[in-house]
This record gives sequence, C-alpha cells and structure tokens, in this order.
Amino acid sequence: MRVLYQRVAFIGLGLIASSMAHAMRRAGLVGQSAGTARSEETRAIAREINLVDEVCDTAAEAVRGADLVVLCMPIGAMQAVAQEIAPHLSAGATVTDVGSVKQAVIDAVAPQLPDTVHFIPGHPLAGTEHSGPRSGFASLFDNRWCILTPLEGCDSVALRRLESLWQGMGANVDLMDAPHHDLVLAVTSHTPHLIAYTMVGVADDLRRVTDSEVIKYSAAGFRDFTRIAASDPTMWRDVFLTNKDATLEILGRFTEELFALQRAIRQGDGALLHDYFTRTRAIRRGIIDAGQDTDAPDFGRSR
Amino acid sequence: MRVLYQRVAFIGLGLIASSMAHAMRRAGLVGQSAGTARSEETRAIAREINLVDEVCDTAAEAVRGADLVVLCMPIGAMQAVAQEIAPHLSAGATVTDVGSVKQAVIDAVAPQLPDTVHFIPGHPLAGTEHSGPRSGFASLFDNRWCILTPLEGCDSVALRRLESLWQGMGANVDLMDAPHHDLVLAVTSHTPHLIAYTMVGVADDLRRVTDSEVIKYSAAGFRDFTRIAASDPTMWRDVFLTNKDATLEILGRFTEELFALQRAIRQGDGALLHDYFTRTRAIRRGIIDAGQDTDAPDFGRSR
Repeated sequence: MRVLYQRVAFIGLGLIASSMAHAMRRAGLVGQSAGTARSEETRAIAREINLVDEVCDTAAEAVRGADLVVLCMPIGAMQAVAQEIAPHLSAGATVTDVGSVKQAVIDAVAPQLPDTVHFIPGHPLAGTEHSGPRSGFASLFDNRWCILTPLEGCDSVALRRLESLWQGMGANVDLMDAPHHDLVLAVTSHTPHLIAYTMVGVADDLRRVTDSEVIKYSAAGFRDFTRIAASDPTMWRDVFLTNKDATLEILGRFTEELFALQRAIRQGDGALLHDYFTRTRAIRRGIIDAGQDTDAPDFGRSR
Repeated sequence: MRVLYQRVAFIGLGLIASSMAHAMRRAGLVGQSAGTARSEETRAIAREINLVDEVCDTAAEAVRGADLVVLCMPIGAMQAVAQEIAPHLSAGATVTDVGSVKQAVIDAVAPQLPDTVHFIPGHPLAGTEHSGPRSGFASLFDNRWCILTPLEGCDSVALRRLESLWQGMGANVDLMDAPHHDLVLAVTSHTPHLIAYTMVGVADDLRRVTDSEVIKYSAAGFRDFTRIAASDPTMWRDVFLTNKDATLEILGRFTEELFALQRAIRQGDGALLHDYFTRTRAIRRGIIDAGQDTDAPDFGRSR
C-alpha cells in the first residue's frame, strides 16, 4: 500500500481516532501521525501507548504541516475547533471528520475553513461500546462502510485520495448527500440507540424488579440493548441535538407502529402479531447475507 | 454425572428441545430419550440427525414410560397437548415446560394433568435467532439461568431432581413465583423483543430508505435489533398474547420515558440527554461483571 498522506493530524483521540491510527499503521498509509485531545489525561495515555508519532498539546500545533486533518471529537465541539485550526491549516490540505451526523457538521465547520483546503465530511459506520484512546484496534473498519458526503464542487483528486485511505483501512466507501445520510442513519442507528437507551432506563427505574434480576436475566434479549446503550453519552447527546428532525420523524413512525402492535396485544390479535414478526425475519437474513453480521449462535459470546 | 431420569420425552423438537437433547447427552443425564413433533418434516430431520433415541409419531407414544416429560412447543399449543398426553403419563413422572411465560402455562396445563404427576414449570433463559431441530447445541445453557416456578405444595424431591438436571446441562437455577417471573421477563425480554420487532418493521416500511441501505448500514446499531427480531414468530406471538398485562404495563412505562427523551430532543435539552445516557452505562457494566455478556469489541463478530 502506498503512502497517501505525508502527515495526518487527529483532533480528538477516542475510539475512532485510535482505531484509525492503528489501521493506518497496519497498512502503512501515512508518513507521520500527530494527534491531540482536549484532556491532558487522554494525551498522556496516547503518549504512553505510542498511539501516534507526535502527541501535541494544541490542535493548532497538531495540524501544522498536515495534509490530512481528521476531526474526531463530538459534533458539538467541531465549530470551535474548526475556528481554532483554520489559520494553521496548510494550503491544499484535506479536512475530514468522523461525526455521526453530516448536515450539522457541514453547517458548523465549512464556514470556518479557508478556501485553500478541501473539506470532505465522512462517517465510518463502526464502533463498539468502548471509548477513549485505549479502545481502538486496527480491524474496526474491516468490511464496514464509510460514508463520505462531499459538498458540491468537491475536488475529485482529493476525494479519490480520501476514499483510498478508507479502503486502505479496510472499509468500503459510499458517497451520498448529507441530508440523505442523516435520514438513513436516523433509521439504522440514531433511533435504535434512543430506543435502547430508553428501555435500559425503564429497567433501571423499576422498583419491583431489582437491578440484580435485570442483570441476571439479561441474556433473554435485554443485553443487546444495554450494549448499544453503553456508548459515549456526549457523542450521543450531540447526535440527537444535531439530527433532531430526522430522528423525531423516525421516532414518530416508530411510536405509530408500536401503538398498532400494542393494540393488537390488548385485543388478542394473534394473526397481526404473527404476520408482523414473520415479515421482520427477512431483513435479518439480508444483513447476514451482506456480511454485516454473523449468524453464529450467540455471536461467539463466551458461553 | 449420574443418570437422573430413565426416559425423557420431548414434545416439540425446536431449538430448546434439541439443545436439551445435546446437553443431556454431553453429561449423560438420562437413560433414554424420546421425542415427537407435530410436523412430519421435523420428525424426519430428528431421525436423520439422531437427535433422540426414539422419534415417535404421537405425543402419547413419546410419553409412555417417561419419568420426565418436557413440553417444548409454543405456549398456545400447550393446553391441547397436556390433554392429549394426560392419560398416558406414568405415575410419579415429572412434567415440565420451557415456555417464556409461566402463569399462562400453569393455567393451561395444570388442570389437565393427573394428580399422580409432578408439574414443575420452567423457563431456560437462553436462545438464538435460529429455530428447528438442527439449531440446537449442547452449550446453549452453559452459564445461563433457568427459572423454575413450582406450584404450592410441589414435591421437593422432584423439584431437586429437575434442578440437578438443569445444572447438569450447564445452567444456574433460580426459583420464583410465576407472576414475578412474568414481570421480570416482561422487562428483560418481552418488551425489548416487541420494541426490536417494531423498529425493524419501521425500517422495512420506509420508502425513502431502501432495503439495501438499511442492510448495508446496519452495523451502526440496527443489526442488534434485527437479531432479536428474527426469533420464531409463533413463539413470540404466544408470548405477547399470554403475558399481556405485564407487557402492556412495561410498554406504558417505556412510551412515557420515550416521550420524555423525545421532548428533550425537540427542546434541545442536552443536559437531560447526557444525564440519561450516563446512567444507562452502569447497567451494562453490571451485565458484563455478572458474566452474562462479553465486552470484547463487536462480540468477536467476523470483521
């Protein structure tokens, strides 16, 4: 694999940035890596584990001389960071991000950046329940999708190079416009996360069912909700605040459906329930066929 | 491990029965195994894979001479089967079941059975998204819980023997009364399943987000819902029809919470969202500490 960028700068050193750092090293995709994080503790850990070649104390320092800058902080912090780094960006550099919402990132970041850089928003669809600089691993993006949402008039050479980078890190790349991305993700990610958070919150609240029972008997379905409800709270707060319209739209559809099923339960309409549950099986088959999950029993969890 | 029962009869040969058959053989827990299923195809497969020692064409035949009878069919079919086998049960035999709801099973089954048998309802909290006689495996119950809900006056020797059987199959055993079981499971299993079914149904319905996009981008959270929404439709229909009150109660709490979060999103109340998402993290930690899930990234799914 050839070197695609001479110097990459990560602003933010959490799960995604640290996984990118490992994946870039695995394939020798960049000449030199630099990174910074707002918290001193994170920077100290990054130095200790040698996550990138150079851990900088400020974002301005990190981006100096970089031909690729990756914004890896929660969406709510991106506007301020973009303002901070703008004067220090090299002409011709590519600036990208890994935020889970794209239109809001474009609105926050694009106006801050000089015309001399290529801003290409991105979103790798991969993650775990863990956060922080120690949580990254090189194979996180393997066979996962990364969606890029280039703006009109985006430089095609810069775009092609960023695509190659993600492919070199193991991902498949798709291009779409930001509003469509935000709607698709509201369905496949944002609303499911909100629902999982809610269900876990309900369980946590119930007085008659003790914590210990909820935990002991979680293998019956509940634990799959707790995994996605254990993701980073700041990141998810920002997702819902910035993809408000699409999330509320899908939530509206969800409660409409849920009430129909609830009514069927109340009325004892077994035929409606059976039809519904049969229909949803097909989608699962599609996901396994597409290589986005395994059908191994229990996902190979320790038994 | 000593032989606990001379002859076990499985009525129904799906995921749970076939896993029990494998687990019993693994540990040498029963002398002889028999089984039957309503569908001829299932019986033929069971014969082909040598799932039990004797595949019978009728339930009456299967239970003849058995000192343990396990009802492994959907709950809605249990009353009729109990009526059918009642005249053929051996005196002193234990009759148990593996249904996900317990009070409804007791109401349906107990009145059909002669006083000469011990009826001890049970529910192993284990499963996969797969169904049928080929889907079973010996380790399904390892380190999982099996809840028994003995009736008042239950014979303690018969109860102890059934507990030993489940322990011999790798499970931990808990005892509780049926109504409490049904409430706990409404929280940890039934409501999460209904919600997962609903979310998958919403995704399936949306016209602007194509099937292919929902499937491609499912790794972002949605796939965890599809797994639990791929379980057996008949079994789940019966769960909701027979655990109606507890499920509707928890659903009511769920929608109340969901509306509070929805309102916070609409109003941009980031503090409320962040607090909520932080609180739900703790429960996840408890589940991993209790050995009911792994915190390995991605569950060791193929990457």
